[in-house]
Amino acid sequence: MDLLISKEKATTLTQLEHDLADRKMATVILFEGEGGMAMSHIVNQIVAIFEPRNIKYHCVSNAKLPWIQYCLLNIAPKGTISIFDRGWYTGILSDKESNLSHNINLANSFERYLYNNGVNVIKIFLNFDEDKLKKHKKSYPVTLDGEDDVFNDLGHIKEFNVSKNKISNLLDQTNSKYATWDIIDMGDYKDTVKKIADLIEFRFNDLLKMPRHPEKFDIIEACPNPREKLDFTKTMSKDDYEKKLAKLQKKLAELQIKLAKSDKAMVLVFEGWDAAGKGGCIKRVTQALNPRGYKTFPVPAPTTEEKSHTHLWRFAKSIPDPGKIAIFDRSWYGRMMVEPIEGFCSELEYSRAAGEINLFESSLAKDHVIFVKFWIDITNEEQLKRFNDRAADPLKQWKLTDEDWRNREKWDVYEKYVNSMIKQTNTSYAPWVAVECVDKRYGRIKVLQTIVDTLKKELD
Amino acid sequence: MDLLISKEKATTLTQLEHDLADRKMATVILFEGEGGMAMSHIVNQIVAIFEPRNIKYHCVSNAKLPWIQYCLLNIAPKGTISIFDRGWYTGILSDKESNLSHNINLANSFERYLYNNGVNVIKIFLNFDEDKLKKHKKSYPVTLDGEDDVFNDLGHIKEFNVSKNKISNLLDQTNSKYATWDIIDMGDYKDTVKKIADLIEFRFNDLLKMPRHPEKFDIIEACPNPREKLDFTKTMSKDDYEKKLAKLQKKLAELQIKLAKSDKAMVLVFEGWDAAGKGGCIKRVTQALNPRGYKTFPVPAPTTEEKSHTHLWRFAKSIPDPGKIAIFDRSWYGRMMVEPIEGFCSELEYSRAAGEINLFESSLAKDHVIFVKFWIDITNEEQLKRFNDRAADPLKQWKLTDEDWRNREKWDVYEKYVNSMIKQTNTSYAPWVAVECVDKRYGRIKVLQTIVDTLKKELD
Repeated sequence: MDLLISKEKATTLTQLEHDLADRKMATVILFEGEGGMAMSHIVNQIVAIFEPRNIKYHCVSNAKLPWIQYCLLNIAPKGTISIFDRGWYTGILSDKESNLSHNINLANSFERYLYNNGVNVIKIFLNFDEDKLKKHKKSYPVTLDGEDDVFNDLGHIKEFNVSKNKISNLLDQTNSKYATWDIIDMGDYKDTVKKIADLIEFRFNDLLKMPRHPEKFDIIEACPNPREKLDFTKTMSKDDYEKKLAKLQKKLAELQIKLAKSDKAMVLVFEGWDAAGKGGCIKRVTQALNPRGYKTFPVPAPTTEEKSHTHLWRFAKSIPDPGKIAIFDRSWYGRMMVEPIEGFCSELEYSRAAGEINLFESSLAKDHVIFVKFWIDITNEEQLKRFNDRAADPLKQWKLTDEDWRNREKWDVYEKYVNSMIKQTNTSYAPWVAVECVDKRYGRIKVLQTIVDTLKKELD
Repeated sequence: MDLLISKEKATTLTQLEHDLADRKMATVILFEGEGGMAMSHIVNQIVAIFEPRNIKYHCVSNAKLPWIQYCLLNIAPKGTISIFDRGWYTGILSDKESNLSHNINLANSFERYLYNNGVNVIKIFLNFDEDKLKKHKKSYPVTLDGEDDVFNDLGHIKEFNVSKNKISNLLDQTNSKYATWDIIDMGDYKDTVKKIADLIEFRFNDLLKMPRHPEKFDIIEACPNPREKLDFTKTMSKDDYEKKLAKLQKKLAELQIKLAKSDKAMVLVFEGWDAAGKGGCIKRVTQALNPRGYKTFPVPAPTTEEKSHTHLWRFAKSIPDPGKIAIFDRSWYGRMMVEPIEGFCSELEYSRAAGEINLFESSLAKDHVIFVKFWIDITNEEQLKRFNDRAADPLKQWKLTDEDWRNREKWDVYEKYVNSMIKQTNTSYAPWVAVECVDKRYGRIKVLQTIVDTLKKELD
């Protein structure tokens, strides 16, 4: 492939590429538009300008995941430029017309999420006019007797099934301060590439100079809080428990098979006080399940790699495909409890957490995910009792750490954050269920019953 | 699912599970055998014993990768137990008969690799006798009107197409001190599960008590060293270069399409002196390629997550699927240069590196990967000149670090390791090509020419 831009321009751009990497900025160059292979030839030219080690190229044609999840996962870490040969707008334009306004909201919120979490987005729309392009056809590379087709798996989205007017509306409605659109008319091959190179130079300079102001969101506690109705006196007899456990586990096994054949997936989130019994609840669930259909994800502190991405990235990885179940033992809700309390995230980041999480969950729920989030609850006194029991039992001492005692001292602070978290994120598409677990038997049955009821309802 | 083992036994096993996690041991429990769903029911019982947060379950039925690569990638990190519901032996028994002795070697070497790199392997073969099992059929869970089939995607390997005698030979030939076989006869459901639980308890205790002695390998420098024939006086005129570059890049683009349609993949490794021109060579290659068909992988220091796995894990992730090209900008050969020199790996680990790497490359080459490994070479004087040029040029200063100067002081040590590396790993299935790059034009053309020649030969 002959490079179409001058050596000087290439040097300028690679220097800027280095400056962005040096400042640990994450940058996305998103190309959208029509024009099939002609557009791809243009993008290939842009890719070839940069140092291969700092860029990641993605072509959405392979995406099987929901668009937002796919794009989020494929945004490269800090210090890297991600080039998307089509991205979430291709997702939107390929989706049902009736989802359009939902999708526009989603795209805007997604770009706002990226902006606030330090990812720059440069959006370039390549305007395609068939008549005009015909005149310039000769300036584009000749495809080798159709051999190029092996890479042309974008055939089905070569031309969107929507009018110019609709596209223009879409661009207008998604042109925000978080990510503005640049529109380039596709004409002569070399001219078009040059125009784009100039544009990228301009945008890169802009990014390096413009200060960023991540936003602070208002805390909106609008959802009901099921913790208010907790009744810790509830108990269950051993006989009753064993009968119900067997019955519910059998039912759950059947429903897992039904889920496996459906186009839905299930995500179970387990949060709760230390020693509340999360592990025991999870185990009663997994015992009922076929291991081929579920995965559990314990959530330790984020790794260096995970920290170089936006905070939801590491969870997006583990969202299950249709037919599968994912069980999170702690979750993305760390950002609304331990992280602000221990200072692992800033006040600004905490203020945005609920909005960002609701976006994440709603987009997945809209696509294929059934969410249930459990808050496993005990009283302060019960926790003390369990800590003391653990301390006294040589077989259980390992379960108790100094950190547990330190967290216990902050019970009141945690409780404030927990209630706020639930009131901000107990949505219809991803509801919180508070579980009384002072009596473990009662708690485990409530968890199983909730999952069974939810699956029954959702799979009918 | 009713748990078939006693509560006491379960407590003992979870305590041992915790002890293994506490010592940061990585442990694989590999189940192999016939008996389809009956076997899966047994494995599910074992999975249900443990704390979900410390185990990872894998069923090989989804494996599309080469078996060794799939298993290596799915072995969980230190502190975790990986349960394989069938693994590499199912791979071997499903493979062509003519590959058997090769595969046996591979399995033994793989287990030796795991042993030496701190992964425990417990291999359990479930012996299946159809007549005997018929008597016990009633003890197994009733499948729900065939509904279970949704998870029974192992149908095609329900019974291996080989005689009992062959299986017995396979077990015998792969019963090594690195991973011994335990054979359990499948009988009554509950009895079988109990036997396995006892066995695992025994093996876990063994692992916790037995000292480990990772091996030291002999350094065998048996391969030819192309560095001995380097001629740094070679140059190429600008005219000649530009003509050849255009021609080779065009040819490479055509060959990429041919590769994309084949069942082969290509892995290009670039190693070389600092400032030798690796980046420039890589760029001339990628400029010719369609971005949809290749990925580049710069190799920085390993992350914490990567360090919790065996050293080849992070590279196994990036081995391309058929049709694709992967370009490594530095590679797994760090273990034979910077790591031993800077003390990032032990003398023992260095001694084993070539054997482990040759195993990795040969198994992939046997499967679908075409390897070319480039050593980009310059003279000591040329490096000094380039360092000084970089230091003097404000646009290039970022390319030069203090570390570069420190490494330069160790030129002689590096040279010794480089020569030894090449003489240990310049194999027929993954050859090293030494490239004179004092004249960058000459070097880049040699790289392109080598890739084109290799693809032509391999794809014919």
